[in-house]
Amino acid sequence: MDDKILNEDELGNLRRSHYSFQISKLNINEEIVIMGWISSKRDHGNVLFVQLRDQFGEMQIVVKKKEVSAELFGTLKNLKEHSSIGIRGKVVKQKNSSDQFEVIPNEIKILSVSHKPSPFLTQAISSIGIDTRLDLRALDLRRNHLQLVFKIRNTILNSIREYFTTNYFIEVNTPKMIATATEGGAALFPIFYYDREAFLAQSPQLYKEQLTMAFESVFEIAPIFRAEPSRTNRHLSEAISIDAEKAYVDYRDMMNHLEKLIHYIIKTVNDKNAEDLKNLGIELPKISYDFPRITYTDLVKKLQANHKFIRWGDDISPKIIKDIFGEEFFFIIDWPSSTKPFYVKSITNNNFDEDKPQDENKQLSESFDLMFGGLELSSGSTRINNKNLLLENMKKKGLNYKAFDYHLRVFDYAVPPHAGFGLGLERLVMTLLKLENIRDAAFYPRDIDRLTP
Amino acid sequence: MDDKILNEDELGNLRRSHYSFQISKLNINEEIVIMGWISSKRDHGNVLFVQLRDQFGEMQIVVKKKEVSAELFGTLKNLKEHSSIGIRGKVVKQKNSSDQFEVIPNEIKILSVSHKPSPFLTQAISSIGIDTRLDLRALDLRRNHLQLVFKIRNTILNSIREYFTTNYFIEVNTPKMIATATEGGAALFPIFYYDREAFLAQSPQLYKEQLTMAFESVFEIAPIFRAEPSRTNRHLSEAISIDAEKAYVDYRDMMNHLEKLIHYIIKTVNDKNAEDLKNLGIELPKISYDFPRITYTDLVKKLQANHKFIRWGDDISPKIIKDIFGEEFFFIIDWPSSTKPFYVKSITNNNFDEDKPQDENKQLSESFDLMFGGLELSSGSTRINNKNLLLENMKKKGLNYKAFDYHLRVFDYAVPPHAGFGLGLERLVMTLLKLENIRDAAFYPRDIDRLTP
Repeated sequence: MDDKILNEDELGNLRRSHYSFQISKLNINEEIVIMGWISSKRDHGNVLFVQLRDQFGEMQIVVKKKEVSAELFGTLKNLKEHSSIGIRGKVVKQKNSSDQFEVIPNEIKILSVSHKPSPFLTQAISSIGIDTRLDLRALDLRRNHLQLVFKIRNTILNSIREYFTTNYFIEVNTPKMIATATEGGAALFPIFYYDREAFLAQSPQLYKEQLTMAFESVFEIAPIFRAEPSRTNRHLSEAISIDAEKAYVDYRDMMNHLEKLIHYIIKTVNDKNAEDLKNLGIELPKISYDFPRITYTDLVKKLQANHKFIRWGDDISPKIIKDIFGEEFFFIIDWPSSTKPFYVKSITNNNFDEDKPQDENKQLSESFDLMFGGLELSSGSTRINNKNLLLENMKKKGLNYKAFDYHLRVFDYAVPPHAGFGLGLERLVMTLLKLENIRDAAFYPRDIDRLTP
Repeated sequence: MDDKILNEDELGNLRRSHYSFQISKLNINEEIVIMGWISSKRDHGNVLFVQLRDQFGEMQIVVKKKEVSAELFGTLKNLKEHSSIGIRGKVVKQKNSSDQFEVIPNEIKILSVSHKPSPFLTQAISSIGIDTRLDLRALDLRRNHLQLVFKIRNTILNSIREYFTTNYFIEVNTPKMIATATEGGAALFPIFYYDREAFLAQSPQLYKEQLTMAFESVFEIAPIFRAEPSRTNRHLSEAISIDAEKAYVDYRDMMNHLEKLIHYIIKTVNDKNAEDLKNLGIELPKISYDFPRITYTDLVKKLQANHKFIRWGDDISPKIIKDIFGEEFFFIIDWPSSTKPFYVKSITNNNFDEDKPQDENKQLSESFDLMFGGLELSSGSTRINNKNLLLENMKKKGLNYKAFDYHLRVFDYAVPPHAGFGLGLERLVMTLLKLENIRDAAFYPRDIDRLTP
């Protein structure tokens, strides 16, 4: 036999000729080069079955003791899982299968050697604590379960961009190092900006609003930073936010956009990742076209039946809402202005029922939260585009309005009416894929306890 | 006449029926609703010509004194440029034109009123200092010149994503808050991370490398942060970096990818933005398929003819290179290992000419810089995937290798051979569109002097 082991632990001039998905019956008897990492091995004494995985799937390598050199056989036999190899070999049909192939190696190049056994199995869903997995995240991400999660996450991201682009939104990038807090002081990460104090942006809010002036319809998909003090399964200190903002529309138009966006995402994932969803063992939520829309005031009334302590004007805990709504998408609309940030527009032309609040303290706002079960996925509103109203609100909320001069001055030049929303990518992925922990929707999650890897 | 001014300064139930690009001869005599901001007005006494701009272009509104109420005429006459209005009116053909239309208003709704004259003209290319413009950036971005720049920037971004997706790269997001500097200490922004010190990521380097382990081919388009002390026209403190990394390839494969990517971008912009390029008055660089590739060693020899002080091993100032190469793309390859970060792989199998350096101090690396004229656009290399070599290099470069434990530990489990590059989006936009200042390639630029807006 002419087989060789090229044990240099580096690539040299060897290159892959086929990815796993490119091997078909057309390649039978052809010599090809494949590369990947060993996901499992079965040792039958005189025959080794090696599963080699590349970014698209698995390939089977069959090595018979009598057909290769003792050295090659021994090397493969001793290689640990996760080691990377390149193989030049012949494609043959698998026994008892008409559409499965395997490769008989002529030449093996060892590309990277694993020195330790992995603390978790590639096939296991979650046999081990999340911290052990996160400490070796790159290895953890090789597990089948996370491979499927992040493959679908990729489809979700692409479908979001497709939706916005089709609807004439322009992608923007706003600064993450900012001079002042958007929504007041809490939960900000301070930075040393040269000789000054600055902060990491909690949201692109004020910037995306300004940009409607020049581009009308904008979106951004970028990190946001929140110094969350909580240790929960649904908070991250750094997350990817999907932000949209549009001029000449109000919050109801943006609710329609958000609803259509969620539909488009679900349709696209169902189309493109049907097999992956099956392998994950889940189905995406089935949704009727219209998400229910319940006003804050009606919701409070409903809740008061069982929770006497809830009063109009309170923020509402997601946990309590979960009792009323099941696993479905719905909007809570028209929140009290007092619960919303300074830039949220109040409802000026209230058509209240008689028993609904009308005085200034009970002012409602043109706002919505998109919920799924007990989880808040998105918040949106019509924004104020009048400088004096903004100033007034800042004062009411106790903000240092002078620090916002760089923002307010633009409103002298007629910022158009506009509305928008922010949608948390990881929360969306967590919801759609029924993940227990939001950390598994991020490549390298950040929280109060975790800054590495 | 039944004309009305709905002077509420808010949107109400009025919605746009047509964007500017949707108005055609099919709409003649139809009543439509258009919205936008006033980009210019011509007052002919009894006739007002108002140019209304939406996100796709301009529309002409013609208001004849005798055909509308005195109030409506007066209101329009007094509205400053940049004010936003909505118009319900009839489409007619423009005089002396077969394919231009104008709108005769029946109803005007004032949506946002400008209270100050703009300090710069929408039509001017750069009649005023950049700081005045940046102080009112949202207004500045309405200028024709920047509208074109950012429209093309959008095409560039989309084409980059298309290229990577077509070539099986997966989009990832890596953390921007990190525990240790990737490339040593300088130019980092420190953060307070809860009770600890942390830093803003200068690049996604180590994370994208790790991710080749799980996903093979990854890319990221995200902000990077560099505390540049310099005040130049080509540095930003916050920039968008296009990062790619791929397993089972080396730096030459990634140079090929980068070259194809640049070609794809130029082709796409030429296809999709032909009109915009014409309006900008520029042509994209014409490039032959193969970018010249000059080794660092050959370049030094060439330079030494005119610059006696240059020695092998020096970093090379872009200014000096500009004398040799004109306005073209080219690669400088095989840099001395001493000029490159710890993770860059050395050339192990040197096929040197006799007069080329061979001793350890003159070790070359598998690296490249993509240059255009005197500007560095991208840097890339084959990376080290062997833990001991990484450790050795960290020690050589004086890094605190213990602080990298979270990174190094993954290499016990066989990180595959891999290579990659980072490409600065703003520098690319600046180069392609011949911008004088890199700040005009960012929506809200950040530098040592500027943290707002």
